[in-house]
This record gives sequence, structure tokens and C-alpha cells, in this order.
Amino acid sequence: MEKQDHFLEHFFNPESVAIVGATNNTLKMNFRIMRNLIDLNFQGTIYPVNPGAQEISGIRAFASLRDIPDKVDLVVSAVPASKTLDIVRDCAEIRAGRLVIITGGFSEGGPEGQKLHNRMAAFAREKGIRVLGPNTLSPVNTQNHLAISFNAIKKIRRGGLSFAFQSGFYDPKINWILSHMGVNKMLDMGNKMDINEVDTLAYFAGDDTTKVIAMHIESLKGNVNEFFDLLKSVSRQKPTIILKSGRTPAGSKAAASHTGSLALENDLIFDGMIQQTSAVRAQNMDEFFDLAKAFSLLELPKGNRLAIIVLSGGEGVMAIDSCGMNGLEPASLSQNTHQRLKEIYPPWEIPLNPFDAGVCMEFNLSDLSLFFRNLAAIPRDENVDCAIMQMPPNIFAEFLTKSNLSQKPIDAADEQFLQCLASVMENGKPSALWCSTMDSREMELVEMLEARSLPVFQSSERAIKSLSAMYRYGQKSGQV
Amino acid sequence: MEKQDHFLEHFFNPESVAIVGATNNTLKMNFRIMRNLIDLNFQGTIYPVNPGAQEISGIRAFASLRDIPDKVDLVVSAVPASKTLDIVRDCAEIRAGRLVIITGGFSEGGPEGQKLHNRMAAFAREKGIRVLGPNTLSPVNTQNHLAISFNAIKKIRRGGLSFAFQSGFYDPKINWILSHMGVNKMLDMGNKMDINEVDTLAYFAGDDTTKVIAMHIESLKGNVNEFFDLLKSVSRQKPTIILKSGRTPAGSKAAASHTGSLALENDLIFDGMIQQTSAVRAQNMDEFFDLAKAFSLLELPKGNRLAIIVLSGGEGVMAIDSCGMNGLEPASLSQNTHQRLKEIYPPWEIPLNPFDAGVCMEFNLSDLSLFFRNLAAIPRDENVDCAIMQMPPNIFAEFLTKSNLSQKPIDAADEQFLQCLASVMENGKPSALWCSTMDSREMELVEMLEARSLPVFQSSERAIKSLSAMYRYGQKSGQV
Repeated sequence: MEKQDHFLEHFFNPESVAIVGATNNTLKMNFRIMRNLIDLNFQGTIYPVNPGAQEISGIRAFASLRDIPDKVDLVVSAVPASKTLDIVRDCAEIRAGRLVIITGGFSEGGPEGQKLHNRMAAFAREKGIRVLGPNTLSPVNTQNHLAISFNAIKKIRRGGLSFAFQSGFYDPKINWILSHMGVNKMLDMGNKMDINEVDTLAYFAGDDTTKVIAMHIESLKGNVNEFFDLLKSVSRQKPTIILKSGRTPAGSKAAASHTGSLALENDLIFDGMIQQTSAVRAQNMDEFFDLAKAFSLLELPKGNRLAIIVLSGGEGVMAIDSCGMNGLEPASLSQNTHQRLKEIYPPWEIPLNPFDAGVCMEFNLSDLSLFFRNLAAIPRDENVDCAIMQMPPNIFAEFLTKSNLSQKPIDAADEQFLQCLASVMENGKPSALWCSTMDSREMELVEMLEARSLPVFQSSERAIKSLSAMYRYGQKSGQV
Repeated sequence: MEKQDHFLEHFFNPESVAIVGATNNTLKMNFRIMRNLIDLNFQGTIYPVNPGAQEISGIRAFASLRDIPDKVDLVVSAVPASKTLDIVRDCAEIRAGRLVIITGGFSEGGPEGQKLHNRMAAFAREKGIRVLGPNTLSPVNTQNHLAISFNAIKKIRRGGLSFAFQSGFYDPKINWILSHMGVNKMLDMGNKMDINEVDTLAYFAGDDTTKVIAMHIESLKGNVNEFFDLLKSVSRQKPTIILKSGRTPAGSKAAASHTGSLALENDLIFDGMIQQTSAVRAQNMDEFFDLAKAFSLLELPKGNRLAIIVLSGGEGVMAIDSCGMNGLEPASLSQNTHQRLKEIYPPWEIPLNPFDAGVCMEFNLSDLSLFFRNLAAIPRDENVDCAIMQMPPNIFAEFLTKSNLSQKPIDAADEQFLQCLASVMENGKPSALWCSTMDSREMELVEMLEARSLPVFQSSERAIKSLSAMYRYGQKSGQV
């Protein structure tokens, strides 16, 4: 992997990390910061710093940064705000040029905090120390298993999707994010004392392993024109999803109070500026993660003709409504596909698209494998550009294997069921499933499907909105 | 329970039910229809009808309806379309006046199906037999444990919410619906050969145990003016939520094809008519179930002043944006509450509303019970009409009990955690939680919270939209 010549490169790929405030106490938030690096097998050296410990999680600890005998590539500080300036000073002394400040209570912490912020910012600038945060929970890089988080990180599914956030709001969701959507890197800019959205966007633009960028912002700290000029060129090259909160005057005021940044007060102007780029604006958090997942896991649709497979006519009507409201067209399936589907029809003629798989399954319970083989003709039809399918309930896994399912979350029946779904949906075109209620069994299936790059959305509307945004992005950016 | 003098009463509270097409074969869809009645301990007599069986699931079976020695209150028919007319004839012969036809393939099944439909409809009308369906999966009545479904029904949480559907789209979601939102009755009108939305609405209006009505329609089969006149008066008395699909011309055409009904082609006119009632229109399926749950589990807000408890400033900004866009006001908390909250503040001042519980918890890990006791002051503040709170991740259950959680889905730590959440949110005012990612542990917590009438939504926006709709309903209907 070739390293980028951008100062953020060492934040994501440090050769060594010192964790100031590391602890053996499992009932402190800080415990997890270092433990994750160990559990995930971080590909670099770890230096715990804590004056009261000889070793932490089995690794030799140092009383201060100044006691570390080797060069420290990245310092992560998680000590109280009042002690943080000392850490910045230590960084200067040991010539550590990169600092992550997890601690909060600076520019968002009243006049006292603001004063501390100013002193730290001036000192770091003078000494040439680049600072991420304060008030950040990052970085994460799935390539080298670097992950700064308060939560125990369980499973990582790597991919090309890189996130930038301006708040730790994603941290409670981190396991869900890391296990489902194919993440490359995550950066929380926090209070943006130094590193801001322009730095981050420029880095992701030049990062070869980042294929899709998803950015949450509340304020622009860099020059507004600089940001939009950059966004214009980056978003033509890589799909770039923007969630901008602080849209209403009250929201913008709230944004100012929690990170101490000046928010963008006029949402309409912001929206107008986004329109002049190829970036895709998410209307809310659900849409942000939906789009991130869709762009990460799927190719861009070559056209807007959608095939829809449902479990009931009622779902089909709602999907068709969503198509019309989001600029996709129900595909007109060919005669060949019609012939294939006739083999699995109920005893009467049914419409081809949306295709009611529910009623057909009732009449094909004796051979559901054949049913799925014929169903697979739908997304493969020459008149189809993209496809969505409602995930059938577990009950069909029973019929498929002709045996009652055990109570285990995932068993052989589920495995066979998964294969059937994949045989329909892995068809070389952007294809998504939806499932609006998820019990624990369904969730395991969803995880397995998404691990195969088949995204599952919570409604046909959300799947359609995501595919529609991808289709429009392809057109606007000239990539399709 | 006093019985209503409406013909639908016997569909929901039959003294006896005959299941025509009942089977012992667990790998047929029909198996579940009767099995659910047994497993749920249906409060009436069950007569399986199947010429090839002596007994089904341990109950004596009859070769035909004509062989049943006693009066049959309700007949449920699940035999192929071609044989259904014979069942209607049998009903006439044994003077069974109420028939549910589960089978599809009639008016939605091409010219042949339409012909069958017409013959059955004429015959049933002539003989005075009331017909639900065809193409229905219902009724469900949680009061007497009557539940017609293809899915194995697991848990039922009773309540005052009654659903009417015009499609079986809810059947794959039936366990989720029945376990979370406090359901009273469910009726799927299917192809509406006889029983239509006017009958259903009139019945629910007069049904004492139904407190909230949620209705999905694609077409109006009864007289349009009659429906809206009825809706006007019913929606003033009981919150009535309407999901109308087939909104676009293509959607409306799709609606016509799957139940053979004439759809309402102009959505704007429909919307205008809804505006003249107190009914609440849901924009999509997610909103339909969100609203159903909110109205079912919560009292109407007395005002629009909302308290917001978040885990991060970023979530707070988004919640405030949603408030502004949906007509709720962030409540201004009193000095008393401010004093209480100061006890759990981080070492700096933070805004009161949205209240960042995340940063506070980090500084109160040593006594989270105290933390929750003080937090409880927020929704109880005199300036608060309703409240929402982001559900803290499981990690806090660990800190609460000062022990690492076991891997069991729900254990003592979760129980204590649940008590803490409930102590904040059970405050006599409409209060909801949100949690945007649900793993299986979280889902069990959600189920336990909803069993205590504390609804959990998937985002602050969805919680706010639901409370906002309830507030506006209270104002418009004059109930608040």
C-alpha cells in the first residue's frame, strides 16, 4: 500500500501510538481505547502512558510521554481537560507532531474551556503539532486495525467507504457501522481546533483505498469557497455523501454550543452550493447511512429501470409509488422472462413487475429451489438496470429444507436460504433487499447478505431512494 | 365485555370457527392457520374440515362443513379458488352466515377469476352470507386469541390499537406488530368482495376496546362521501391513522391489479379530503407503524414543548432541526431542573436542552443510579409537555452494575438498566426513546420497554414526527 504524502497519513497509519490516560480499570471509559487496539491486533507499536501503572493490558506502561525511549508517531490523549495542555507540551518536547485529543470541555466548555482551547491551539501551531479534536473519538482505519473508540469493537468488514464526522454521534453505532457497510477509515473532527473538513476531504480524495466518502458537518471551519471548490472536483471522482445538520436556526445554534464552531446559518444557501457539485446530500441520518452503504456495496446503475420483487401486492403498490416519486421506472420485463416466470405462477396470470413472489411461493412450496432459479431471471432481464427484493420471512427457510428450523440463530436451513437469495440477487447489476422488521435471526441473515455486498434496507422506499440517488449521481458526475 | 350489535362482531368474536382446508402437513401454508388457534388457546370451538383426515392437531376433523353437527359461527376457507364456490354453497346449506376467504385468484386473477368472483358475490348476497376477502389473512382479535395467519404467532401484547388493511403486506411483520404495539384487532379486507372500509371503520368506531384505529387503503369500495363523513366523526372520537398507497398513477394501476379494486386516482384530492377530518395521514409504511405505536402507547401531549436527552451533541443538533421542521418547541427547563442537573454535569456548563447525557455519563460512571435519578428531573420539569431520549448503549449497563455483562441476551444488568431508563421516562407525560441500531440485546430491551408502554423509535426524527402528529391531533380533534 503506497502511503500518501498528506499529513493525515500518519494519523491513519501511525507506526506507533501512545495512549495517554490508558488504564487497567475495565469500568473506566478509557479502558476500551487501548484494549481495542490489542484485541483488533493493531499493526503498530502501542505505548500506554499512565504514571500509576507498570503495565496495562500486559504492555509496559510509561509514567509520561517523556519516558518513552522511541519515537512516537501518534499521541492519543484522554486525560482531563485541565491536564491536556501539559500533554501538548510533552508532545513538543519529544517532538511528536501528531496529537489526537479525545477529551471534551474546551471550546464547548464555556469561557474557561475556550481559554484553554486558545492556549493549546496557539502552542500547537507554534510547535508545528497537528491536532485532531479535541472532543473526538477517532481515527479508525480498518486496513491496519487502528480503532479509537469507547465501545468494544467486535467485527470489522473492510471496504472502500470512508467517513468524516463532526460529532461522536456515530460511536454508539460503531459496531453496526463497522460490521455492515464495508468501512475503510473514519475520522471525527470534533471541535476542529486544527484539522478541519478541507483537510479531511483532501486526504480522502487522494487516498487510493477510499472509494466513497461520507461526511457529516455542522459547520465549515475552513474557507467556504475552498471547501466547495474541493468538493466540486472530489465529488466528480468519488461519490461524496454530505449530511449537514444544524439546518434550522435553532439547530444551528445547538451546533455552535456543542463543538464551539460557527454553524452555517442558511441551509438554503448550503443546499444551493451542494447542487453545484456532484455531491449527494442526505436529508437525515437514516438516509446518510443508507446512501453510504448503497454507494459502498453497489455499482452505479446504468439506467433507471427497476425490477421489484415483493411478498404481497400491497408492498408492490408502495414500491411503485416510491419509484414514481424518486425518478426510477418500473422495468418492462421481456417475453423470455415472462416464459420463465410462468413456470412458477399461481394458477392465474399475475403482473410481472412488481412481481408478487409471496403468492407464487405458496404454490411452489414443494420445490422452492426451482422457484428461486426461475425468479433469478427477473434482475437478469435485458430491460432491467437495477433490482430490489423484499426478504422473505424465515418460514420459507423451513419450506426450502422441508424441515422445521431449530432455534439456533443460524443453521443449515438459513445457509441454504441465503444461497437462494444470493442466487437471485447476485446478478451483476445493483441489487438490494429490504426487510422492515428485524428479529435476531433476520439480523444475522442481513449481516451475512451485506458481507456478500448485498445491502438490506428497512423499506422498499429507502432501497429505492438509495438506488435513485446512485443513478442520479452516475448521470451528474458523468461516471455512467 | 359487551358485544356490539354490528355484523362484524361475529367475525371477531365467533363462538366457533370451522377451518376448511386445515391440514396436519406442517409444510403447507394452511397448517399454521389452525395451529395458531390451538397454540394461542383460542376461546371458542374449532372444527377442522378436511375430507382426508380423521383428526387435525388432535381435534376431530370433518369431511365437509355439512358434517359438523353444531352451528358454525364463522367459516374460514383456505381451499383452492376453483373449489371455493362449493364452500360458499355449503355455508348456505348449513346456514353459516359468515365466511372468511383466504384464497386468492379471484378478481385479481384475470377474466376467469373475475367470473368466479362475480358468481360467488351474487350467490353470497342472495343467501345473506357476509364475506371477508377473498385474498385476506385475518381476522385477529387479541381479546379472545383468534388469529388467522400463515406465520407462527409467538407473543401477543394486548392493547387498544385496531388495524384494517387492504393487503396481506403486514403478515410477514405480524409477530413484530403483535409483540410491540398493543394490538386489539386486525382485519384484512383483501379484495373487498363484500366487507369494505366503511363497514370496518363503523365497527371499530363502535368497539369499546378499540381506542386507536390504523387503516391502510388503496381504494374506496364503499361510497366515497359515506367514508369521509364517517371518518370525520370517527376521527374526532378516536385517533385514526390512514396510510393510503397507490398515490402515483402507476401505483394506483398496480393497486387495481392486485386486489381487483378501483383505486383512488387523484392523491391530492384524497389528501384534501383527509385534511377536512381529524384523521392523521401517514406518508409511508414506516410512519404508519410509528404513528400506530405512538398513539397506542402514549397519551396526547398537552403542549408542544419537548425535552430532548441525547448521547452526543451531534444527535442533539439533528433533534433540534427535526423539532423546528415539525412544529415542536425545545422546552426551556426551569432553574430547579438546572440545579438538579448541575449535580451530574461534566466539569463545565452544558446546555440544558438538548441535554447531552453522553458526556455527563462519562463523568458519573461511579454512580450511574444517582445520574439517572437526577436525569429524571428533565421530563418532569413544569415547562415540559413531552420528552424523548436516546437509548444508551449496553456498555452503560456494565458500568451501572460494575460488572462485565454476560453474553446472555437479557440478564440482571439489563434489568437494572431497564429500571433506570423507565425511572426517567415513566413520568406521566408522553415520552419516547430512540435507538437507531438494534442488535439482538437491544431488541430485547426495546421489547421490554414497549411492554411498559415506552415506545422506542429508530431515530429522533421519527420520535419527533410521531409526537408532533399526536400534538396536532389533540389540537385539531379538540381532545386536548
